[in-house]
Amino acid sequence: MFDFSGSYTDQYELTMACGYYKDGRQHEPAVFDYFFRRLPFGGDYAVFAGLEDLLGILEHFRFNARDLTYLRTQGFSPSFLAFLESFRFRGSIRSCREGDLVFPSRPILQVEGTIIETQLVETLLLNMLNFQTLIATKASRIRLAAGNRRLIDFGLRRAQGPGGYYASRAAFVGGFDATSNVAAGRDFGIPMSGTMAHSFVQSFDDELSAFRSYAASHPTNCVLLVDTYDTLRSGLPNAITVAREMSQRGQALLGIRLDSGDLAQLAKAARSALDQAGFPAVKIAASNQLDEHIVASLLEQGAPLDIFGVGTALVTGHPDGALDGVYKLALSAGRPSIKLSENPSKISIPGRKQVYRLVDRAGRWLGVDLITRADETPPSAITFPFERPASTSGKPTDPTSPHDPASLASARLEPLLETVMENGRRSGAPRTLAEIAAYARHRLLQLPPEYRHLDQPAAYRVGLSQTLADERASLIAAARKRTA
Amino acid sequence: MFDFSGSYTDQYELTMACGYYKDGRQHEPAVFDYFFRRLPFGGDYAVFAGLEDLLGILEHFRFNARDLTYLRTQGFSPSFLAFLESFRFRGSIRSCREGDLVFPSRPILQVEGTIIETQLVETLLLNMLNFQTLIATKASRIRLAAGNRRLIDFGLRRAQGPGGYYASRAAFVGGFDATSNVAAGRDFGIPMSGTMAHSFVQSFDDELSAFRSYAASHPTNCVLLVDTYDTLRSGLPNAITVAREMSQRGQALLGIRLDSGDLAQLAKAARSALDQAGFPAVKIAASNQLDEHIVASLLEQGAPLDIFGVGTALVTGHPDGALDGVYKLALSAGRPSIKLSENPSKISIPGRKQVYRLVDRAGRWLGVDLITRADETPPSAITFPFERPASTSGKPTDPTSPHDPASLASARLEPLLETVMENGRRSGAPRTLAEIAAYARHRLLQLPPEYRHLDQPAAYRVGLSQTLADERASLIAAARKRTA
Repeated sequence: MFDFSGSYTDQYELTMACGYYKDGRQHEPAVFDYFFRRLPFGGDYAVFAGLEDLLGILEHFRFNARDLTYLRTQGFSPSFLAFLESFRFRGSIRSCREGDLVFPSRPILQVEGTIIETQLVETLLLNMLNFQTLIATKASRIRLAAGNRRLIDFGLRRAQGPGGYYASRAAFVGGFDATSNVAAGRDFGIPMSGTMAHSFVQSFDDELSAFRSYAASHPTNCVLLVDTYDTLRSGLPNAITVAREMSQRGQALLGIRLDSGDLAQLAKAARSALDQAGFPAVKIAASNQLDEHIVASLLEQGAPLDIFGVGTALVTGHPDGALDGVYKLALSAGRPSIKLSENPSKISIPGRKQVYRLVDRAGRWLGVDLITRADETPPSAITFPFERPASTSGKPTDPTSPHDPASLASARLEPLLETVMENGRRSGAPRTLAEIAAYARHRLLQLPPEYRHLDQPAAYRVGLSQTLADERASLIAAARKRTA
Repeated sequence: MFDFSGSYTDQYELTMACGYYKDGRQHEPAVFDYFFRRLPFGGDYAVFAGLEDLLGILEHFRFNARDLTYLRTQGFSPSFLAFLESFRFRGSIRSCREGDLVFPSRPILQVEGTIIETQLVETLLLNMLNFQTLIATKASRIRLAAGNRRLIDFGLRRAQGPGGYYASRAAFVGGFDATSNVAAGRDFGIPMSGTMAHSFVQSFDDELSAFRSYAASHPTNCVLLVDTYDTLRSGLPNAITVAREMSQRGQALLGIRLDSGDLAQLAKAARSALDQAGFPAVKIAASNQLDEHIVASLLEQGAPLDIFGVGTALVTGHPDGALDGVYKLALSAGRPSIKLSENPSKISIPGRKQVYRLVDRAGRWLGVDLITRADETPPSAITFPFERPASTSGKPTDPTSPHDPASLASARLEPLLETVMENGRRSGAPRTLAEIAAYARHRLLQLPPEYRHLDQPAAYRVGLSQTLADERASLIAAARKRTA
């Protein structure tokens, strides 16, 4: 059976740890950065998710008997296996708050501890944070498209195996209202929602009998699936019959669900028929391969839809499928560390760092995050090394940037990285999922509208303090000199 | 913590089960079909995977104390909760063998039992089979591209959370040789593979020291990552230095790994340098956002690569992300059941069925599977209701079909659905993962080459026995009459 023990990792984390152990370097300090480079879905922001799950797992992270029995067969030395047997994660973590909006190429989180413990948790950390951040971001985009209409996660059947469990959690972080996933409802307290499948209707002699049976057993939350045989000629008239019968019993049909065909046209026809029959309060739900673009298109067409059930595209993060988050060594044995690349934006940023969101005096976000050394107070001037220099003026040339250097100079700096774990223990009580989702909603409202567009949004910029930029430049020069 | 108890389901499975229970229908028999409609990745076949995991979970499927405590808060009646408490899956399953090649619109598996037990396992079944079949199919395509070169799964860090555990299993079914995923190695017996990250190299004062340390601790399986600073000017010369030092100690460098840049050009330069230095046996591995198309392109360019490490695209099934497998009621209360649709190919196929692969006397596959009633022996004439009739000849018009009706008439019929579970117990011993992977290899060799192309392959056809087609047609007519 599956678990989150020490073997939830890539083999090379163990071979590297074994190398450090043999060299007697197991107490050597190190700092790693977690960040991503490419935004998913063509948007401009990501919703950071998965942190509380990660911290909970790290608090209990160890190599269990099954792991050790197995690793014994893989050629590791008895002394290294004994080391793993007593291994606990005793590192510290500084991180953005879960639910915050995060952007490319700046640390979302830093892990600090011995080189072995910081290295050994890499795969677990990337696996948890990359996936939940991807799905929370997708959910947030669907929320933007749907306005305040009700959003329900229907995805477990098409989810990537047990990934669906965390997908439902991340969908709630990103703005969904409910899930069909019972295990996620049970463990995360997400409101549950569910109605009927075509098979339920088929299992009766006729559709009306199926609807009547369902209404009798679910008088307070009855949503009828109307497309098993023919939406407008059979499902809708039968639903109205049941709505009348429920009304006579003092009950109310909650809604109908459309699951195939031209959803905009069917919703209009259904709304009209329900209204004419005297049921303006009966809601209309839509499902069937929805995503943020289809939801936006349906609403642009004026489809009178109240509820969207979203499955595959939500829980698999289609079409991207993965966030490209990476985990890069920033400090090793007390010295800032760098990795070169032919692509300048892929060269890492050395050392212990802080990230600030720049806001104006009214609290409005200025479209820029600033990375500094952790020990810089106040930070030095800002530079934008990831943007191509302008032809002559020397100013940053990102044409989407709405702010000039003058407004940055007077900006207030909101620090984003806070200590969430020290010596392997959470620094505070876990945040509840409801708190995290509320924070994500709050932060999305703070994001200026030009960064929220589903397509071709403005780009949220990242700057470096001059001090950090200078340090990075000299490390790059030194590394290039060594290899020249 | 996560588990596969009764709450690993969609809420509506429970509301429907509750409806059946209240109506006193809990012993009513039902049969469901599992099948998919659309092939992923633009290919012509899928590799069926996940069955053994599913059967293992179903044997122990129950609502545990946490589930029941939670469901008690969700408005279910005490008598239904008592029913769930004693619920076990006692159904039967007939299925294609795991590892077989499967095609759209024909049953891969049928579940038979009471309407409640067959309905309650829907979500779990779809979740397990859709995902592993998707990934085994992706792996098989990468295997086709790579020929007999070594393929290693590197995907856990970008996998969809714990979905990565089963992704590694499915990758092995589809033809991969090894995985970096230690938990999958431990539980499924997949050979493990792993080398070093950039962080390992960075953590030393210089690259050569890092390589020497790694070679010292891993003398028999030393693969050096050569792109931390500069592949050709630093990594490769340092690797050759270490290869010489190992050679002087009677050891051999196993390989180098390229992880960025133009992999074809770098591989050629590295091969040439290694050969000139007297190390023709040192292997060259490539990684970095590979998939079947990039592997094929690299080999077409003549890149002398021996090993491919494939991550994200493999374990997330990029760009599709999900197989669209569905679970449709085929028989209810003893009567064949049908679901209509405006799209004729989406109308279900009623009743208990068998599926045959048609082969000629020499055992060659004829490009056609045949669906019949389960009780038809021998099956009647074949018809192709999912294909548009020809303008005049009446013959099937699929232009990719290589076979005429005459060859089908003399075909041998190989039955695909075999009983794998009876009354909730496996019918035989579980098949090992090695057996399943070997069977997948064997079946892929049997698939005629025209169906194996990565792009625009021929379409493997599906026919219905005339008896089954007639039964389906009369059920469609009756259902349409009811709703007219």
